[in-house]
Amino acid sequence: MDPAAPCLVGVDYFPEHWPEERWAEDVRLMREAGMRVVRIAEFTWSKTQPRYGVWDWAWLDRAVETIAGAGLKLILCTPTACPPPWMVQEYPDILPVTTQGRPMTLGQRRHYSPLHAGYREACREIAEQLALRYGSHPEVIGFQIDNELHGTIEDVGPLAQAAFHRWLKARHGTLEALDRNLGLVFWSQQYSNWSQIPVPASASHHPGLRAEWCRFVSQAWTAFCRVQADAMRPHIADRVLTTNCYLHRWGMEIDWHELMREGGLDLFAFDNYSNALHENGYYSDLARSLSTPHWILEQRCGDTRHHHIWPEPEVPLEELTEAAARAGAKVITYFRWRQGLFGHEQDHGAVLDHHGRPGRMYGRVSDAIARVAAAEPIDPPQPSTGIVFTWPDAWLSSSSPNSLHYRDLILENAYRGVFEREGSGRFVLEPGQLEGLRTVLVAGKLIHDPDWEVALIDFARGGGTLVAFPMLFAKDAFNKYRPEYLTPALREVFGIEIERRILVREGHAVTAELEGAPLLLHTRVEELVPASAEVLGRFSDGPLAGLPWITRCRTGKGSAVYAAGYPDADGMRAVLDRVAVRGD
Amino acid sequence: MDPAAPCLVGVDYFPEHWPEERWAEDVRLMREAGMRVVRIAEFTWSKTQPRYGVWDWAWLDRAVETIAGAGLKLILCTPTACPPPWMVQEYPDILPVTTQGRPMTLGQRRHYSPLHAGYREACREIAEQLALRYGSHPEVIGFQIDNELHGTIEDVGPLAQAAFHRWLKARHGTLEALDRNLGLVFWSQQYSNWSQIPVPASASHHPGLRAEWCRFVSQAWTAFCRVQADAMRPHIADRVLTTNCYLHRWGMEIDWHELMREGGLDLFAFDNYSNALHENGYYSDLARSLSTPHWILEQRCGDTRHHHIWPEPEVPLEELTEAAARAGAKVITYFRWRQGLFGHEQDHGAVLDHHGRPGRMYGRVSDAIARVAAAEPIDPPQPSTGIVFTWPDAWLSSSSPNSLHYRDLILENAYRGVFEREGSGRFVLEPGQLEGLRTVLVAGKLIHDPDWEVALIDFARGGGTLVAFPMLFAKDAFNKYRPEYLTPALREVFGIEIERRILVREGHAVTAELEGAPLLLHTRVEELVPASAEVLGRFSDGPLAGLPWITRCRTGKGSAVYAAGYPDADGMRAVLDRVAVRGD
Amino acid sequence: MDPAAPCLVGVDYFPEHWPEERWAEDVRLMREAGMRVVRIAEFTWSKTQPRYGVWDWAWLDRAVETIAGAGLKLILCTPTACPPPWMVQEYPDILPVTTQGRPMTLGQRRHYSPLHAGYREACREIAEQLALRYGSHPEVIGFQIDNELHGTIEDVGPLAQAAFHRWLKARHGTLEALDRNLGLVFWSQQYSNWSQIPVPASASHHPGLRAEWCRFVSQAWTAFCRVQADAMRPHIADRVLTTNCYLHRWGMEIDWHELMREGGLDLFAFDNYSNALHENGYYSDLARSLSTPHWILEQRCGDTRHHHIWPEPEVPLEELTEAAARAGAKVITYFRWRQGLFGHEQDHGAVLDHHGRPGRMYGRVSDAIARVAAAEPIDPPQPSTGIVFTWPDAWLSSSSPNSLHYRDLILENAYRGVFEREGSGRFVLEPGQLEGLRTVLVAGKLIHDPDWEVALIDFARGGGTLVAFPMLFAKDAFNKYRPEYLTPALREVFGIEIERRILVREGHAVTAELEGAPLLLHTRVEELVPASAEVLGRFSDGPLAGLPWITRCRTGKGSAVYAAGYPDADGMRAVLDRVAVRGD
Repeated sequence: MDPAAPCLVGVDYFPEHWPEERWAEDVRLMREAGMRVVRIAEFTWSKTQPRYGVWDWAWLDRAVETIAGAGLKLILCTPTACPPPWMVQEYPDILPVTTQGRPMTLGQRRHYSPLHAGYREACREIAEQLALRYGSHPEVIGFQIDNELHGTIEDVGPLAQAAFHRWLKARHGTLEALDRNLGLVFWSQQYSNWSQIPVPASASHHPGLRAEWCRFVSQAWTAFCRVQADAMRPHIADRVLTTNCYLHRWGMEIDWHELMREGGLDLFAFDNYSNALHENGYYSDLARSLSTPHWILEQRCGDTRHHHIWPEPEVPLEELTEAAARAGAKVITYFRWRQGLFGHEQDHGAVLDHHGRPGRMYGRVSDAIARVAAAEPIDPPQPSTGIVFTWPDAWLSSSSPNSLHYRDLILENAYRGVFEREGSGRFVLEPGQLEGLRTVLVAGKLIHDPDWEVALIDFARGGGTLVAFPMLFAKDAFNKYRPEYLTPALREVFGIEIERRILVREGHAVTAELEGAPLLLHTRVEELVPASAEVLGRFSDGPLAGLPWITRCRTGKGSAVYAAGYPDADGMRAVLDRVAVRGD
Repeated sequence: MDPAAPCLVGVDYFPEHWPEERWAEDVRLMREAGMRVVRIAEFTWSKTQPRYGVWDWAWLDRAVETIAGAGLKLILCTPTACPPPWMVQEYPDILPVTTQGRPMTLGQRRHYSPLHAGYREACREIAEQLALRYGSHPEVIGFQIDNELHGTIEDVGPLAQAAFHRWLKARHGTLEALDRNLGLVFWSQQYSNWSQIPVPASASHHPGLRAEWCRFVSQAWTAFCRVQADAMRPHIADRVLTTNCYLHRWGMEIDWHELMREGGLDLFAFDNYSNALHENGYYSDLARSLSTPHWILEQRCGDTRHHHIWPEPEVPLEELTEAAARAGAKVITYFRWRQGLFGHEQDHGAVLDHHGRPGRMYGRVSDAIARVAAAEPIDPPQPSTGIVFTWPDAWLSSSSPNSLHYRDLILENAYRGVFEREGSGRFVLEPGQLEGLRTVLVAGKLIHDPDWEVALIDFARGGGTLVAFPMLFAKDAFNKYRPEYLTPALREVFGIEIERRILVREGHAVTAELEGAPLLLHTRVEELVPASAEVLGRFSDGPLAGLPWITRCRTGKGSAVYAAGYPDADGMRAVLDRVAVRGD
Repeated sequence: MDPAAPCLVGVDYFPEHWPEERWAEDVRLMREAGMRVVRIAEFTWSKTQPRYGVWDWAWLDRAVETIAGAGLKLILCTPTACPPPWMVQEYPDILPVTTQGRPMTLGQRRHYSPLHAGYREACREIAEQLALRYGSHPEVIGFQIDNELHGTIEDVGPLAQAAFHRWLKARHGTLEALDRNLGLVFWSQQYSNWSQIPVPASASHHPGLRAEWCRFVSQAWTAFCRVQADAMRPHIADRVLTTNCYLHRWGMEIDWHELMREGGLDLFAFDNYSNALHENGYYSDLARSLSTPHWILEQRCGDTRHHHIWPEPEVPLEELTEAAARAGAKVITYFRWRQGLFGHEQDHGAVLDHHGRPGRMYGRVSDAIARVAAAEPIDPPQPSTGIVFTWPDAWLSSSSPNSLHYRDLILENAYRGVFEREGSGRFVLEPGQLEGLRTVLVAGKLIHDPDWEVALIDFARGGGTLVAFPMLFAKDAFNKYRPEYLTPALREVFGIEIERRILVREGHAVTAELEGAPLLLHTRVEELVPASAEVLGRFSDGPLAGLPWITRCRTGKGSAVYAAGYPDADGMRAVLDRVAVRGD
């Protein structure tokens, strides 16, 4: 897609929920609101393939033509987030098995294991059919695979277990290596046969095995996505292949960066149900770090099922839409066109109310679209501050008895500070992405990796301001602590040694000062011994009162700051004011 | 039973828990307290039928004669709420299967499925035996079937599932009709075989399927009750057949009105463990709407197992008993005679303490009985305000992602307002029951039904004051929203149109005013567009600030009021003061 | 062990977690800190017996020699708290079955049933091997069996059920006796076959059956411990056999007094993770009542996994260690030597941090050891106040719908009052242990036992001050209430009768006064009718306002006080000030 292209705003539509005689009226109202694109066909498997071997595309043909006929573009979804009942009857073992030992029941969604070969084949087939049928349609601009991939993290069934065993064997080679890598001698967990290894489906399992499980699950989803992408690719010419990712809490299950590399997709797309400005910024900036351009395939308007109901302040819909477009989204589709009359989401807000008459929300959406259309084309932001972000670090954190709450740390502490100070930030997802930044924040970066270490040191020496926070490189990739707290190279760059790491209980904080102003530190604090570094601030209370909490060391053309505690967003701004602005 | 007959007050007794040599003393003390009736034999299956084919009625004969010999009347219970261990061993599949996938274990009560043919037959047999043995005893005045029927709502076992499939098929005919009726295209839930349909045992299932499940469960209990009623009826002459219903929260599982029509019973009886005056009124008024006369088969005295313990204010036992008698109860038996020495309820309060000596509670109970006996016979109340109440509306509400909390709405908002203003109300359980009322409140009435619509319109036109609240007729019987918010006839009667429905988060409220006085509105508010209606009050804050919240429209000889929010009890009183008193 | 011997302070060490080349440095640092003893080999089964029939003792030999070679004593553990994966694969039925009906999964610890014959035999074998190999080593001073025994209380598997049936049959003889003893006629729970009896794995089961289950579980653990003790005893000469008990909340599962009598052990040892002074006193005093001397095999230093993290006040490690030694502990080993790099406890505090360099905690531990070494040998305390304590009373309490919360009652109310007033107390675990006491508190003593009754009466008549609290002897051993509240003998000794028992809701209190000063009473209050007793104080509010709450009756050379409510620790001190000090 041309990055200079205008942003297409539209809507998610479920024609199968409404009488066909209503379709023309719906499409007319969409046009009148200024909409340009419509996403359809999600969750329609039982309609398109009502039985094994029986296909019914005619209804979808008519829907596509009605929409296209009105001059609207289309995005079509594969329906694989909801296997139809007949398929579950055919393959009962596609159902994940919950930690209670029961297969998921029908009646919800996402009731399948991405590891089931038969299910993958059925998905491949319907995805290919969809691509064959609509892949050359002139108004179809792209395809969404599945919906909000995730969910195997708690599957303890035999399918998941056996696949995990194969994956572990391929990765570690021998049981001896597995034992050594993970530290299974703890509590006598040395396995003498791969088949003995349990599914570590809850976070209270062995931290090493649990972290491996997280990696395995993420890769399973990437592979699942890839099957559909490969089936569709030959038949869709230059149309876009994507999937609507969810960046919310449980969106941490999947390494979206790996998915973008390995999943066979063209661009990153996400669903946005946030009501907070900084969280919207986080989504946009993360999306932009993942691909250019990006799409928003579900943009909330109105209530959701349980949330965003009065008295929560109403989402400034127009503002959020405009900000998203300015931040580089090239497609934004509101979820959803009209409140559903039936099903689990029957109370979900929409552009139209149940009655189907244009009302207040229709008017606001029309305004938002007009504002986007009228906006001057501007270049997307070029942030000068980077935030290191990796999913494996999040998995290690959540697999430990004392989680760092990685996502909160990144979103509410680090990113929010940057966002409120600078309007946007750039996520650094791999060591090679530091170029062009002036400051980089390294928070919750648990896993030591020589490439990261070298890149960060080079960044500082090359003139950047490197700002590191507690637990830097504290562990290896298998969630084992490293006995070496800072490597010799890092000790030199930061000009300090770390003597002790201290847990701060959730909901509590330690006070520290920076240029006389107090700030609060959470999660972890560390005892520093400065060598060549200058002390910028000290702990005011807590177990380290009076000791330095933040130091800076000039190195090469830049500097390396070590902050021995996690400030909240306000404190993060203060740190940046002190070390980034003046330091630059 | 003769409605003019005096109210018989007595006690629930478990002779099988005590040495036979104590019985005479117990009965003597009952007599001295003025008691007239004793309920016995609940939960005694393992004693009466200790093994398959082995019967022991002798102990019960002796208990009956001891009681009858002292001039006390008797009510006998069938013991079917507790299948004995040998029967569970014989028929393991009578145990309901919990949502964790495990059969209930022994050691509690109500561990059976009412759908199990073998269990129903065993119940039929013991009920028939009981009726044959005591159905012509001169001191026996009635029989209680089972105890507090309920509990299959979470049975996911194969027995329940298969029965549900048969019931759905009988009701909907074809899978296509089922799909169309419930809206199963949502999330691809169109079934191609009845056997695929899951038991929607939690409220997070498809709202349409869940509502059907609630209806199915209620009917299963009615049918179960009927089996025993039919077996006993031929052998008990004019003695009363009833069951002790529970109107507490989980008593909403069963449509007691349908049970009274179809369950083969003579009158409605209930258990009363409430400590609140308005809840006692609610029980009595609901009971009177269900049958005349009614009985109270468990009236709490003292602590219960976990509740009503200090510092909760002590129940004004004498007052509640007298009020119940005045409200038309013809039998009131206290639960229970003496604190049990063993078993789950060993800490439950009773007329006598563990030691068995008459004490403070014995004295209070004696006083209460004397007060009832001394009271002038009065006619039961003739309320002029009705409150529409149906169980299917409650099921729809609780089957939706955003429940209206129907029971609370009726009890704490609508009824409480009426009770505190007028002392009593009449529950309108079907369209034909509006006669004689001057005002009727229609709250939480989700299901549109032409009979109800016509009856309510006729009521208003005929001179009554109809007061409707949000979500009036918002859905069809299958929990689907209706795209038409108000029918043309209702638009005319109320003189308004509804433009929008807004969820109010639980625990929050919107402020409105009525004649200058503020009141709080909960649950849902709606945007009204008045046509011919006059505006009686407006929203003061919230998403509709300044817009009308309550309107009135003269129609025929009466008027139709639409309140676009749910006031609490105080607000309900204010509404009635405004529209009912002056309006009448 | 010689009670006059000095206290050996040392550490818990996991050599298998560290490279062998580090061992010498670790041992050197231990020596330098003044340590004298090292506990090792816990949880090492998968290392010592990596497969069925394959043994590897060489690594442990080397570890033992490294430690012993540095002049440190050793305590060796049997590794049976963690069956290795191969054994679970061999014997899947050693896994307890949770109340969700699923076997425990691997990946934690204590995943075995002590009732499994095959597992017991495997434990016997490895315990015997350990004793054979190290039982005559001159530096080995003792052996720890397993680790923190407990955990079958929720095992609903067939193994547990069948063993429970056998145990019940041996204890009660016939089903008729079982029925009579427990009161199974309640809710029709009379069993006609032993096999019908459920595992009452949750506290909501029949109170009688649940209390029996608790007793059965405790005895199962004692028998399990005995198997290992008997296997080791012949091979260890005069070395000490013990197990590290846990006195925390879930430590109430096992009757440690019975374990000391029947488990084949030499002395009582416990783990101590408490941060509160009075709880430390409770542990020490309870341990001393259980055996002389006693050991502390895990003494916390620093954070634990989730607890004791900032801002909780840091444990006064030096003070607690010194107090424990003064209270008679002859071994104290800190948990653990160094923070683990891997496994569930990787965030657990230790003497050394992850980096392995001596730091702040190392210095504090060294100081604590020096203080203990420098202390004058003193006689252990000789408390004059006793507190009756029995595990069966705790089980009855927790098996009832309204628990007395026995452990809290003893620890936070009774013991804390004594501790804060007198510095220590003596626990009276059986009727024969009253000698030498001047005052004895009897709280939560539910079970009536003639031996206890006689002993307490004799104690008072012989010159002691007997202080009893609500529910004294209220039940029989099977959790049935006794209809007789006080026996004639007790009525005479206390000079009162009890008329009524009243539940006080959790979190609430009744006010009473004692010599004009107010105090708060919890849990239960009782209505007393004084006969020959003098009234010492009265209820100020609540359901018994104005009535006496505490009475005293002179009897023989002493006196008997009845307190009809449970004061908190402050109130308990006030009561003792009034009745013990002046009265003595």
